[in-house]
Amino acid sequence: MIDGGRYPIKRAVGQDLTVEADIFMAGHDVVSAVLKWRVRGTPHWSETAMKPIPNGQDRWRGILSVFENAEHEFTIEAWVDAFRSWQHEFRKKFEGGLRDLASETIEGAHLIESAAARAEASGGGSADARRLREIAHKMELAAPQEVNDIARWAELDALMAAWPDRSQTTEFQLAAASTPSGYPRLLVDRERALYTAWYEFFPRSAEGHGNRGSTFRDCLNRIDDAKAMGFDVIYFPPIHPVGQTKRKGRNNSVVSGPEDPGVPYAIGNRLIGCPNGGGHKDIEPALGTFADFDWLIDQLDGRGMELALDFAINCSPDHPYVHDKPEWFFKRPDGTIKYAENPPKKYEDVYPLNFFCEDWRALWEEMTSIILFWAERRVRIFRVDNPHTKPVAFWEYLIAKVRAKYPDVVFLSEAFTRPKMMKVLAKAGFQQSYTYFTWRNFKHELTEYFEELTQTEMKDYFRGNLFPNTPDILPYFLQQGGRPAFIIRAVLAATLSSVYGIYSGFEICENAALPNKEEYLDSEKYQYKERDWNAPGNIKETITRLNRIRRENRALQEYDNLRFYTSENDNILFYGKATASRDNIVLVAVNLDPYQSHDAYIHVPVEEFGWMDSDTYQVHDLLTDERYLWRGSRNYVLLHPQNKPAHVFRVRRWLSREQDFDYYL
Amino acid sequence: MIDGGRYPIKRAVGQDLTVEADIFMAGHDVVSAVLKWRVRGTPHWSETAMKPIPNGQDRWRGILSVFENAEHEFTIEAWVDAFRSWQHEFRKKFEGGLRDLASETIEGAHLIESAAARAEASGGGSADARRLREIAHKMELAAPQEVNDIARWAELDALMAAWPDRSQTTEFQLAAASTPSGYPRLLVDRERALYTAWYEFFPRSAEGHGNRGSTFRDCLNRIDDAKAMGFDVIYFPPIHPVGQTKRKGRNNSVVSGPEDPGVPYAIGNRLIGCPNGGGHKDIEPALGTFADFDWLIDQLDGRGMELALDFAINCSPDHPYVHDKPEWFFKRPDGTIKYAENPPKKYEDVYPLNFFCEDWRALWEEMTSIILFWAERRVRIFRVDNPHTKPVAFWEYLIAKVRAKYPDVVFLSEAFTRPKMMKVLAKAGFQQSYTYFTWRNFKHELTEYFEELTQTEMKDYFRGNLFPNTPDILPYFLQQGGRPAFIIRAVLAATLSSVYGIYSGFEICENAALPNKEEYLDSEKYQYKERDWNAPGNIKETITRLNRIRRENRALQEYDNLRFYTSENDNILFYGKATASRDNIVLVAVNLDPYQSHDAYIHVPVEEFGWMDSDTYQVHDLLTDERYLWRGSRNYVLLHPQNKPAHVFRVRRWLSREQDFDYYL
Repeated sequence: MIDGGRYPIKRAVGQDLTVEADIFMAGHDVVSAVLKWRVRGTPHWSETAMKPIPNGQDRWRGILSVFENAEHEFTIEAWVDAFRSWQHEFRKKFEGGLRDLASETIEGAHLIESAAARAEASGGGSADARRLREIAHKMELAAPQEVNDIARWAELDALMAAWPDRSQTTEFQLAAASTPSGYPRLLVDRERALYTAWYEFFPRSAEGHGNRGSTFRDCLNRIDDAKAMGFDVIYFPPIHPVGQTKRKGRNNSVVSGPEDPGVPYAIGNRLIGCPNGGGHKDIEPALGTFADFDWLIDQLDGRGMELALDFAINCSPDHPYVHDKPEWFFKRPDGTIKYAENPPKKYEDVYPLNFFCEDWRALWEEMTSIILFWAERRVRIFRVDNPHTKPVAFWEYLIAKVRAKYPDVVFLSEAFTRPKMMKVLAKAGFQQSYTYFTWRNFKHELTEYFEELTQTEMKDYFRGNLFPNTPDILPYFLQQGGRPAFIIRAVLAATLSSVYGIYSGFEICENAALPNKEEYLDSEKYQYKERDWNAPGNIKETITRLNRIRRENRALQEYDNLRFYTSENDNILFYGKATASRDNIVLVAVNLDPYQSHDAYIHVPVEEFGWMDSDTYQVHDLLTDERYLWRGSRNYVLLHPQNKPAHVFRVRRWLSREQDFDYYL
Repeated sequence: MIDGGRYPIKRAVGQDLTVEADIFMAGHDVVSAVLKWRVRGTPHWSETAMKPIPNGQDRWRGILSVFENAEHEFTIEAWVDAFRSWQHEFRKKFEGGLRDLASETIEGAHLIESAAARAEASGGGSADARRLREIAHKMELAAPQEVNDIARWAELDALMAAWPDRSQTTEFQLAAASTPSGYPRLLVDRERALYTAWYEFFPRSAEGHGNRGSTFRDCLNRIDDAKAMGFDVIYFPPIHPVGQTKRKGRNNSVVSGPEDPGVPYAIGNRLIGCPNGGGHKDIEPALGTFADFDWLIDQLDGRGMELALDFAINCSPDHPYVHDKPEWFFKRPDGTIKYAENPPKKYEDVYPLNFFCEDWRALWEEMTSIILFWAERRVRIFRVDNPHTKPVAFWEYLIAKVRAKYPDVVFLSEAFTRPKMMKVLAKAGFQQSYTYFTWRNFKHELTEYFEELTQTEMKDYFRGNLFPNTPDILPYFLQQGGRPAFIIRAVLAATLSSVYGIYSGFEICENAALPNKEEYLDSEKYQYKERDWNAPGNIKETITRLNRIRRENRALQEYDNLRFYTSENDNILFYGKATASRDNIVLVAVNLDPYQSHDAYIHVPVEEFGWMDSDTYQVHDLLTDERYLWRGSRNYVLLHPQNKPAHVFRVRRWLSREQDFDYYL
């Protein structure tokens, strides 16, 4: 339960949810329990038996599987199992030597007869009812020894389990003990919420011209290149009309010339004749029309790919809201609208909205309508810009409203902020979140952070989408470490999480930065940018391999199965992912140092795989196609930053044994 | 929050509750927060400021103190502090070099003026309002440098804090985020719920005659003896009429003779003419009358002592309920009432009640009325027999109902059962609980168990009352270990918890058991018992010392301040308790082996006491009056089971320094 049930648990279609509960009651009666779940708003519960965990001190467990992309709810029902209580008590008395058991025999027969009555009343159980009555009758006439035998017939057990008496259910006590907020919730997302690879590019940069922008119709090469590399989501920064007033120039200059295309995040221009007023429901004319947009979606769809749009709640001074809804903005004492600030910095090309203005309901509704507008146009993934500067309650409202109509919509939270805020945004509904991965480069910090993400309660509500770079962030590690650093970060991003992405330019190892900043020099946020998408030294081959490895290894498509293992060198990170059945095991060793070679003894968790320490097995490096035979836990790796900074091993048992044959035993 | 607020937190009068919360909001505004609390059902909230914990990642903390024996509720209120946000932003702009701050200045002045308006509207703040308006006026006319100075005046800070603007409180978001169950609860008990020493005896055994029983009027010697030993609660097993039908004889024999007094737990005899029908609201005539009972309460009261009664929901076949309310009992198919069983064992002298019978409301109400009946007669402590065989919801109902009328009633749960059941009974309302202490004898098991009791969430709802023996349990450790074992267990019980008790006979080291059972031979549950209460070898002197040590050392009157420290010998347990201010520190070293002497180097946590490793200090053994000078952490103890199985040290710094004087600095 996330925060005592306040927030839903998240799963994707096809995943399981394991539910545990302490189930016990006063006295010595035997308890039965089921785990129940349903899509919210539907009447029918599915259910599965819960079982006590051996030596679990009244801890019970049930596992449900979800297959529908919808909001579910679940609960537990437990009841006194009168028949099993009777079985248990009768046996204890009989085995304890008591023989005056006539009264107990009648009780047992009555319980069986009432099961017969339930079977009959159900309409479909008349055969069962007949058989149960036969058994009850036989029991009534039997001596204690025979009663004890009948009581333990497997047939009777099955019949009694089929027609249980749940009239003595726990509702009596649950009336006091249940949370008044109703059932705990389980949000079931579609698969791409859990497993995807994103490729981000500015559509105006598609062709890589330094002096003019590209259009939607020019994007196919870029898309095909991304598809060839194995990406399945194309993510565009805002595609809406770019403001003119206070437009920024190159490298964030406050002065712009007529040739400057402006920052796509300064959204809105009501003066250029767009069909929907020139705000968030329109397209920058330099990119194309709605017809072009529809064409683009068709193209992606035909390739099995999908578009993610950016939802940035920024208004340029030219945004229609500034004209039509000035009451939605912050005002100075003189009545003018405030621009954005992070004192002493000013962002005069952007006006923030006041989510707590008097007319907040209309504002929240309008924001929601933007998402619905694009969802209607077949966009079902949204990357949300700076959600942490808007109220969490607003996101909870918006996401719930959008999901009610489009349960397949996926939101990615771009909150680079304090941990608690990042967490609560995920709890409030974002299906994916940016992470601190961008700044976690070395062994201790990677291990600690990813254990938190994947092995604490966070795994049930926060899915980290790992980006080694973004248009706003060119980390020092990439600036300094050259091509090996890009490969190292690509391997980590692609294998530490089931969801990751790159911002274009990464594949050609772009690393020119503003001095002493983690920002790109000549960022395409502010200008057209000349680029050779196949520049020498690019790492497209490695990225292509990584995405293929992800496709072919189901272990890498899961999120919370990441485990770190011992490596005897702090420069080498060693971890693995395996499916629950262990039919797919991937082990990864990464040299975190982009400058020097390192070797290490690493400890393969053979016992976790159910092997013996003397077993020989094959590790197959899917990056290089090299194969090794290893034995036992402690094995050796040597990694060179230039030609082999990482191993991504598929692990296979090398030898089968006679015991592995079906007919052994 | 216990189970997400489902159950209340417990404290005793005079204790603090530290409340922590993650408090943060979207954007850059400054937040303020208060912790609020009140007695439930009263309108007025007390409040105290919450403060962010340094480097606490948005974690805030507030501490409230409670002084009323009542059920409280608490909550947190947080709001955007517009003035402090303005202060912060103005300073950042000014220090960032901006000087066009006319608009910001007007905003600041407006905020001050609105504080003035709030002060005026309150009725009592007109002087503050005048001064605030002066400052606002001065600010409006000032240049940026001066505005920045005024903004930081301590006087202005204090005035603005006195008249805060809480209109932008978090209710907006809390409407979505708060638990619908209302405020979390805090049960505040009277002091004896937290700190007491119990002495249990059967009133019929008061004089120790083997051939006849004593009466209430015969109990004074026993009470005075207990008082001399330092006990403050006298606990009697059931004092109600004892059933006649199927009465048990000596050593639990199913046959009894006319001289057998019967088991006090087989309650009820409607045939002997008691004033209230002969059930749980009557007194066994052999013990006395209501007048005798009142006299006894007066006697205890005059000695500053208190009576605890046993609440055992057992009915003998002669109980008036059996006659008047047969529908409250379990029935056989032939309509007769079932006796208690733990198959194959039968308890034919006792009929259990069916808490889920059709007439359950009347049954629950009647059970509650029993407690109210005795509370009316000045009994405010109840030891509840086997609560785990009745529904938890029933106890929650009963305790709430009793507390509503008598908030000073204390319930002790005698549940020797599975951990989860013991915990939920405490959560449901029992102020004290029996524990597994009885079976925790050695270092690892004592440490692990008491760390769970006192240093996990359990400390907030479960108070362990430590009994080394009970009429039902004579542990093997006491059976085997002789007098040293009794002293060891007395020291542990008296110092590990602030609440403990002994069952009479312990002080004279009674340890004759049934063979291979942890049960007393010739248990007084079934018979009169000859006893010399001052038998040679008794440990009354040690018990007296222990209770005096508890009275004189406040550290031992707290529950959750227990800490275990390293001892380099597994036979020696070393632990301590200190007050929060460290003005009272008690360290205890116990030789857990009743047969052999052991010595150990033990590690005094000098750094925890704020001392230096080179400091010399005095440890004063309050059991033997010996004193030692120790220095630093590692020191030596030698403990002989016969003459000195334990040290109970009061620790004092030996030397003061010039820095300790008030005028130093």
